[in-house]
Amino acid sequence: MERKQEVSKAVVQRLPRYYRNICELKAEGVQRISSRALAERMGLTASQIRQDFNCFGGFGQQGYGYNVDKLQEELGAILGLRAGRTAVLIGAGNLGRALLNNFDFSASGFKLLCAFDANQELVGKKFGGHEVRSSSTLFEFVDRRKPDVAVLTIPRTHAPDLAHELVDHGIRGLWNFTGEDLHLEGLGVPVENVHLSDSLMTLCHLVGMEEA
Amino acid sequence: MERKQEVSKAVVQRLPRYYRNICELKAEGVQRISSRALAERMGLTASQIRQDFNCFGGFGQQGYGYNVDKLQEELGAILGLRAGRTAVLIGAGNLGRALLNNFDFSASGFKLLCAFDANQELVGKKFGGHEVRSSSTLFEFVDRRKPDVAVLTIPRTHAPDLAHELVDHGIRGLWNFTGEDLHLEGLGVPVENVHLSDSLMTLCHLVGMEEA
Repeated sequence: MERKQEVSKAVVQRLPRYYRNICELKAEGVQRISSRALAERMGLTASQIRQDFNCFGGFGQQGYGYNVDKLQEELGAILGLRAGRTAVLIGAGNLGRALLNNFDFSASGFKLLCAFDANQELVGKKFGGHEVRSSSTLFEFVDRRKPDVAVLTIPRTHAPDLAHELVDHGIRGLWNFTGEDLHLEGLGVPVENVHLSDSLMTLCHLVGMEEA
Repeated sequence: MERKQEVSKAVVQRLPRYYRNICELKAEGVQRISSRALAERMGLTASQIRQDFNCFGGFGQQGYGYNVDKLQEELGAILGLRAGRTAVLIGAGNLGRALLNNFDFSASGFKLLCAFDANQELVGKKFGGHEVRSSSTLFEFVDRRKPDVAVLTIPRTHAPDLAHELVDHGIRGLWNFTGEDLHLEGLGVPVENVHLSDSLMTLCHLVGMEEA
């Protein structure tokens, strides 16, 4: 697998979707798939898929399609899913607990070490097998255990200060649900800002378009 | 505001981000912004922004920048945020309750009418002011009140069947958190599939790239 120069952000953002679809194909027992069939499944064009995969040196032999096992392995490697990354979650409110109870962090390449919350009533409780610790012990924990990323499910107003402190303590990426846009440029580490409202506004637009 | 032919999916998906940033600028007291300043804020290029806005007939006068109030109004109109859409939420588990308690549906163009759950212990309770009703009354409610969209926060296995039933009862869009990819083609109505794992896998990849 040979990496070609800079891969565009758009391609990178399609990688998880490719990986997810390949995992589903594998679960369905599919062993080999053409770029055309994969394109149909994903609502893309076959040439788009070939172009994207070419950024990483190919994956397929002309006319034979892609081997699903091999593709899963290679895409997983590119995504870094087997690098043994670790995470902590900060803020065990409703959204935090929804993630603790239901979200499969390991399928996305992370071992979740534990959660933190300022509410003493939550401290010591477990959600989805993950312990909630007191937020007063957060930085000591981060210094000692060196988690790769922090999941921010705290109120928006606390986000910028906490993000900077976490980066000062060695956190190398943020999964940010606070609604406050945090940027790599300001922090020096990658951030994935989750804006659920963008998705619902898109739906609002699409429902209107169907009427037109 | 003149709509030019077909607007690409990529442009549509950037609209909510534009709208969100414009709302923030307005809250910050900004009245006018150049495409260059907006581009810097959003990590895009000025020509990208001008191109996107041209799909909808412009919005700005050359050399004067964009009027923030007017832009908010026009983008809001394009997104259909003031069309008075309504929604119901199905599945008041952790994720459903996180949305009920914390998510501002009205800012994304929807009035949330109520929630539904099969668990009788939740029925009658309120979360974020939204009542949970028995799922046995769901279709009767949908027939009578005709909500525009359904928010699916139910287990994955129930998603495809329920989606089809909802569409049969007149639901015109789905905001789908179940992890099961639902498609417009199969259902005949627009779907926004929320895959949080895609975002976390992207972060995993970006953290690895920073190391390289």
